[in-house]
Formats: sequence, structure tokens, C-alpha cells
Amino acid sequence: MSNRILERDFYNPSALYYCAVELRKELDASRACIADKLDCKPSEVVFTSGATESNNWAVACGFKNKRGNIVVSEGEHPSVYEPVMLLKGKGIDVRTVPLLSDGRVDEERLACCVDCETAFVSVIHASNETGVVNDVMRLSRIVKEKNPRAVFHSDGVQAFCKVPFRLSGSCVDLYSISAHKIGGLKGAGALYIRNGFNISPLVSGGGQERNLRSGTENVMSILSFKSAIEDFDGSHVCDLYDYAVAYLSKLVGVKINGCADHSSGYIVSVGVSGVKSEILQHILSDSGVLVGTGSACSSKTKKNRTLESMKTEKRFMEGNIRISFSPSNTMEEIKRAMDVISVSIEKLRSAING
Amino acid sequence: MSNRILERDFYNPSALYYCAVELRKELDASRACIADKLDCKPSEVVFTSGATESNNWAVACGFKNKRGNIVVSEGEHPSVYEPVMLLKGKGIDVRTVPLLSDGRVDEERLACCVDCETAFVSVIHASNETGVVNDVMRLSRIVKEKNPRAVFHSDGVQAFCKVPFRLSGSCVDLYSISAHKIGGLKGAGALYIRNGFNISPLVSGGGQERNLRSGTENVMSILSFKSAIEDFDGSHVCDLYDYAVAYLSKLVGVKINGCADHSSGYIVSVGVSGVKSEILQHILSDSGVLVGTGSACSSKTKKNRTLESMKTEKRFMEGNIRISFSPSNTMEEIKRAMDVISVSIEKLRSAING
Repeated sequence: MSNRILERDFYNPSALYYCAVELRKELDASRACIADKLDCKPSEVVFTSGATESNNWAVACGFKNKRGNIVVSEGEHPSVYEPVMLLKGKGIDVRTVPLLSDGRVDEERLACCVDCETAFVSVIHASNETGVVNDVMRLSRIVKEKNPRAVFHSDGVQAFCKVPFRLSGSCVDLYSISAHKIGGLKGAGALYIRNGFNISPLVSGGGQERNLRSGTENVMSILSFKSAIEDFDGSHVCDLYDYAVAYLSKLVGVKINGCADHSSGYIVSVGVSGVKSEILQHILSDSGVLVGTGSACSSKTKKNRTLESMKTEKRFMEGNIRISFSPSNTMEEIKRAMDVISVSIEKLRSAING
Repeated sequence: MSNRILERDFYNPSALYYCAVELRKELDASRACIADKLDCKPSEVVFTSGATESNNWAVACGFKNKRGNIVVSEGEHPSVYEPVMLLKGKGIDVRTVPLLSDGRVDEERLACCVDCETAFVSVIHASNETGVVNDVMRLSRIVKEKNPRAVFHSDGVQAFCKVPFRLSGSCVDLYSISAHKIGGLKGAGALYIRNGFNISPLVSGGGQERNLRSGTENVMSILSFKSAIEDFDGSHVCDLYDYAVAYLSKLVGVKINGCADHSSGYIVSVGVSGVKSEILQHILSDSGVLVGTGSACSSKTKKNRTLESMKTEKRFMEGNIRISFSPSNTMEEIKRAMDVISVSIEKLRSAING
């Protein structure tokens, strides 16, 4: 974070004086950078406070006429799944599509669920739990072939900059991304809204973002979005991932949840039999190895909808940890982390078995 | 902004590992600091992405049963006024209360508008246009006397830390504030929600903020909220304000919009006859004096609802500029700014009159 960005936060980009107009150009440069990465028009990118808002908004406007049915995968992030379940509670026909054991959404079941009454479909691009990538290019086409009027949304938070993808060739109408998942600051997300798609604001009142998202722009976070994209270099992350998966696969009573062949390479979900994930997490944390249990967003809830949908054995769900890889990680760190994990699992199992 | 705060942004405070738990304590310390300042319980403070979201949310949940009427002042910020007008468009009985010429809401008219069917009332605490302060302590009591079930919201964005006020003695149910209006970073606001008040989330999905506002917390902005409160020292701002008002009042064809006796002392709205505000703003900007026209949020729209409600003469509305004072301003800066404003007005008028 340069002091230059910190200074910029002082001005209000919606004002009309000179410094504000200059700042507005910088925000638009960040928008153009995102559009270039997604292969869409800058006018199709709207900044939000983060991916949760983007996902909530996508559901709200994807289903704005409140008629017809909704189709979502069982592997959606809570910020898609929960608003959809709220609609279900209000009597809307919600159809959930299970995941295959490899972690991908069941394509045939998805196609079966979509009919001429389907108003909104959402399939996560890369899973926040397993890192497994759905082929949204293909899935969006399948949905549109069955019903061209169905709105197709994908939560691209874990895929953006990590999974090769261009919106231009897809049938995706709405796509959510976040700055802090690629190394930017928290507080900035964006929603891609296909040109011509008619959308109502979730937050209104000041007219910012062409009246689509009111509120003083989060200058620092939005500027950090551009820097994060430009600086993102994940070329060596696949080596880290491959090393970790090969290492973990050799351990007894340890299973990779989801098929590594379909992974983004940035997240691995590891089932460890005979241990409780929270205890393993604490032991690892004491050794400086920070892993997740469930998604951080819902780490206080016990159930794991994604792993359940994949029909993961209970013993692997109870001892499930999630390891995330970042471009800032080195191979030395991963090698050390794997050794710590291996030793910690053995220590924990010995303690339990007396 | 210390590097310590920047470093903190790396972790996800909703995770369960040690650094995340420590970070969560820091977020809660920021919450406690706000609660202390407002004189409420920390559990009554929920972080949002900013005041626009807080205000939108207050309207959405203040009127959640969608029955009865809504009463708002004509001096509300667009982030209150626009969502209310959307409800009016859907057929809801919305009653708008005009402002007096001194800038305050017309108390008698407010009392007349509230009846046993009133579900939601919103009155801005300090105007974002004129700086004029409404006595929300008193107004909230008047509303509750007429209808104890009516929800009372106040937009406290321009009043927080600037106008002496304690929620404990008021009948306010919902109160919106923002970090960046007191020198914190953009991207963090909060909504005070009176204990026992039943509220639905505007943004859902990850369970953060006790399930009231999902989404990864904007760590840096939230931590900056606490620093901003602790560092806020506006003791000399009244001197700056008094100097400016006395200076401007002596200029020919210049009028202070709203009564200075009721001002927060942080904003002054100045009507300049015979000039267009945008042109005056540009000339001032070239001399390094940054002023607003209308509220920045809606500076691209021509009408000024607040000044119209105060029955401001058209010539003063067309040449209206808004000067904001900050604790970081010095008397030297204000003296220079006043001289620049005076000279610029004369220059502009001469140019127009040939």
C-alpha cells in the first residue's frame, strides 16, 4: 500500500472540484482494468462493498420479478444460498442441484432442473470450500439453451485471476468478484452486469456508480483492486498445490475432498479421519500454520453443505481443514506446513487413542 | 494510518485461528468506542459499508411490515429520501415535513403528520447541506408521544462527534453514522439498533455481525473508525466557523442559508447572488479552495431539495456553495479561503456584467 493511495482516500470522488475529478479517473482506471481481465466493457462493471453484497444483489435482481423458479447448486457460497433460501421460505420454487463426488455440480441434474419457468440460476465458479472449478462457460450455455430468458449468475470470487476465463464467450449475465481474495484490500467487490441487463440498485440514494450503487466510493479499496490485479502472479502456485496434494495423499486416513484435476489450485479441502477439525486447527495455529475449517464466513456453523452434497464420509467431514495458497507463499513455507500438519495429525491421534 | 492497521487487513476476522481471534477483539474495541461515544451498548452497534447502506437499511427495516405511513423531513439525505420515495412509488402513504427558513424541520408539521398508523419516521440530525442541527432528542420524544410504535430513525452522519448528543436519553430507535466524515477511512459506517428492536439483515449470507450484516469485515476502515473518534478534536472548529460566517455575512449579495445559531459549526451553506455555483466552484478550485455544490453525493443533479424546502430565493440557490470545516483546518487557511472567495465572487460578477 503506497502513501499515494492513502492520500487519495481524503477526497470524495463524486464531488466536482479538480482533485475529485482526477480521483474519479483513477477509479475508472480500476474499473477498466477489471473489465480487461474479465473481457467485458468497463460499463458492465459496478463496484460494491464486497462479494457478499455482489452475490446478494445478483439474487435480488436476478429474481426481481419474483415469478418462476430458482435453480442453484448445493455448493453455492452462503451469500448466494441464504438469500435464495429466504425466497424459498416465502414460497418460491427453489431447486437445488447436488454436487458430484469430484466436487463439480451435477450437469445433468442442473439441465433437468431448468425449465421454461426458470427465472434465475446460480452456479459458483470455483468452490470456496474445495477449490473445485465448475465449467460455467459450458453450464451457462446449457441453461440458456433450455431457457434463454433465465438469468445466469456465477460467483467468481475464488476464480477471478486464478482460473482462465473470459466472459465474452460465455452466456453469463451476472458475475461476482472481490478485491481481497486476490491480495487487494477488504471493502471492494464488483458485480459484472451484462450490457442491456435491466437491474435495480440494492443500495440507493446518492447516484454513484451510474445510480446502480450509491454511497461514497471506497477509494482505497477500489484503487487496491487494480494494483492487486496487476501484481497478481500465481504462476508458481500450482507447484505449491501439487506438492501439498501429493504429500497429503500419502498420509494414512487423509483424503482430498474433490478431484484435484478440477481444482483451481488455490484451495485444497482435506479430510482427516479420527480428529476434530477445530482442535487440529488450534494445534496448527500454535505452530504458525493457519488453515480454515469450513468457509471462514460460516466457520461458527457446524454443517458443511458443500462436503455433504459431495457425499463426503462423516469421518472426513468432522476432521476437515481447508488450506489456501497465495502467490506470496513460498515452497519452503508449504514444505514446512505439510510437515507440521503431518506431525500434528499423528500427535492428535495418539492423544485421542491414548 | 499506521502500518499496524495495514498489516491487520490481511487476516479474516471471522476465521478461528489465533490472529483472527485477536483481530476480532480489535474490531470489538472499535465497536465499544463507538458505543461509548453514542452512550449505548456495544451490542447495539452494527458495522456496515457506510452511511448510505445504514440509511437504506434503516428505511428497509423501519418499514419492514409494509403497513401504515412514513413521515420524513424534506431535508433528508438522498440515501434516506430515495428509498422512501421508492416506497411512495409503490403506493405507500409518505408524508414529507418541510423545513423552516432557519433550516430546522418544522416541529409542528412533524407532529401533525404522525398518527396511530405511522410506522417509520426519519429526521436528519445535522443537515449535510446546511449544517443545521435538528433537536432529535426532543423530536423523537414528540413522535413517540403521538405513537409509541412508530420507529424513529435519525441520520447522524454529520452530527457524530460534532454535536453533543447521547442516545440514552432519546427515543431514537435507529441512528446512522460513518467513519470517513470524522476523518476515518471510507468503507465503514454503522447503524445503532436499539436493544430489543427486531431487525432483518439487508445483506445476508456469512453470518458476520451476529448475522445482521454478512460479508468479510472491512478491517482497516473499522479500525480507523476508533482512531478517528479518539483523535477527533473539533474544539477550534467553532472559531473557524464563526470567522467564516462573520466574513461572508458582510459581503454584498451573499446569504448564509439556515440560521448559524442552529448550526453544527462544521458546514456552512452560502448563497451567492448573480453567479452560478459550478463556475464559482471551478474558479475556487483553481486557487486551491475546495467547496461543494449541493451535497457531493448528488452534485450532478441540479435541484437542491433542502434549500427549496427552506424557501431559499432562487438567486441564492443558483449560486450556492457548501463549505466544510475540519479539525485539520487552521485559521490561516480559513482566512485565506475567505479572501479567495470574496475576490472570486467579485471577479465572476464583473465578468458576467461585462
